[in-house]
Amino acid sequence: MPFVQITLTKGKPPKTISTIVDSVHKALVEEFKIPELDKFQIVQEVEANNLIFPPNYLGVPHSENIVYIHITAKKGRTVEMKKQLYKKIAMLISEKTSISSDDVFIVLSENKEENWSFGRGQAQLVE
Amino acid sequence: MPFVQITLTKGKPPKTISTIVDSVHKALVEEFKIPELDKFQIVQEVEANNLIFPPNYLGVPHSENIVYIHITAKKGRTVEMKKQLYKKIAMLISEKTSISSDDVFIVLSENKEENWSFGRGQAQLVE
Amino acid sequence: MPFVQITLTKGKPPKTISTIVDSVHKALVEEFKIPELDKFQIVQEVEANNLIFPPNYLGVPHSENIVYIHITAKKGRTVEMKKQLYKKIAMLISEKTSISSDDVFIVLSENKEENWSFGRGQAQLVE
Repeated sequence: MPFVQITLTKGKPPKTISTIVDSVHKALVEEFKIPELDKFQIVQEVEANNLIFPPNYLGVPHSENIVYIHITAKKGRTVEMKKQLYKKIAMLISEKTSISSDDVFIVLSENKEENWSFGRGQAQLVE
Repeated sequence: MPFVQITLTKGKPPKTISTIVDSVHKALVEEFKIPELDKFQIVQEVEANNLIFPPNYLGVPHSENIVYIHITAKKGRTVEMKKQLYKKIAMLISEKTSISSDDVFIVLSENKEENWSFGRGQAQLVE
Repeated sequence: MPFVQITLTKGKPPKTISTIVDSVHKALVEEFKIPELDKFQIVQEVEANNLIFPPNYLGVPHSENIVYIHITAKKGRTVEMKKQLYKKIAMLISEKTSISSDDVFIVLSENKEENWSFGRGQAQLVE
């Protein structure tokens, strides 16, 4: 059920992109307890000058490697679960790619169970 | 007022894309009762490997034809209206294109009336 | 903390794009009182036929110059602050580019403080 949009600059190796995708998914499975098959994501590659970020903010430096991860999920997760999610995503990406955890930007948007259709015109979470 | 972002793989015929756009709009007009002219959408075409989906989830199989439809609308619609919307979108797309209703993925994000400006710097829904 | 996605047709001069980016940021700094360094944005350029808009809506005409500005921010701003934000964004863009204020479309999505990570795996707004 989460729907994830990942945005980064064009030109990253396919292996790096798939590692980011899999890292976000693994973290969602482990921390938000979603099913393994619940993996719906979009990767948006943009020109470097179309990715705007500050040199640093709140003590965290940023580079052109910045990755924007926008997760939409139904509400209900605790603050603690969200904190663990961010930690896990940043850890997995920085361990398995050359991207620093400083460059992992995450924003979470929440909605209702009735706001999802996984195909076939059904609202599976409320049927 | 709904703002719709449709994401699919590059290479679909323009006719298929415009049919998807018009199907989503027609369903919104009929089920969410929006005005005919209230048609604001973006189509995002991405490389096939940048569209991530599972082979199946909740009993629904998915293919590389999957279409992600992200609708942002002001809150206030009932669960029943949302169910009818999903049904209508999936039906119209599968009837008029070669895309299966299984591959119509919809997520709805809701916000407040005051959160919209349709141009001219005004917040039209609260003025 | 706001995260901004700007969508417009391909082919606009880089100067126009950077002016739009800076106008949105300046308006957020002045009206939403965000820090100068809190500047996180994505610019998405799409083919002209992938930007769908009506010839006019609610008395405002639109052209192929339309710019979709989707702002995600933590909740808490008043209706008055939002109105001032829209006004300022439209004014700055129309003053400094050839884009009419009629073509400045803005939608705001709001979430919680705990829904943000600015890097390093931390939830900076609740730590």
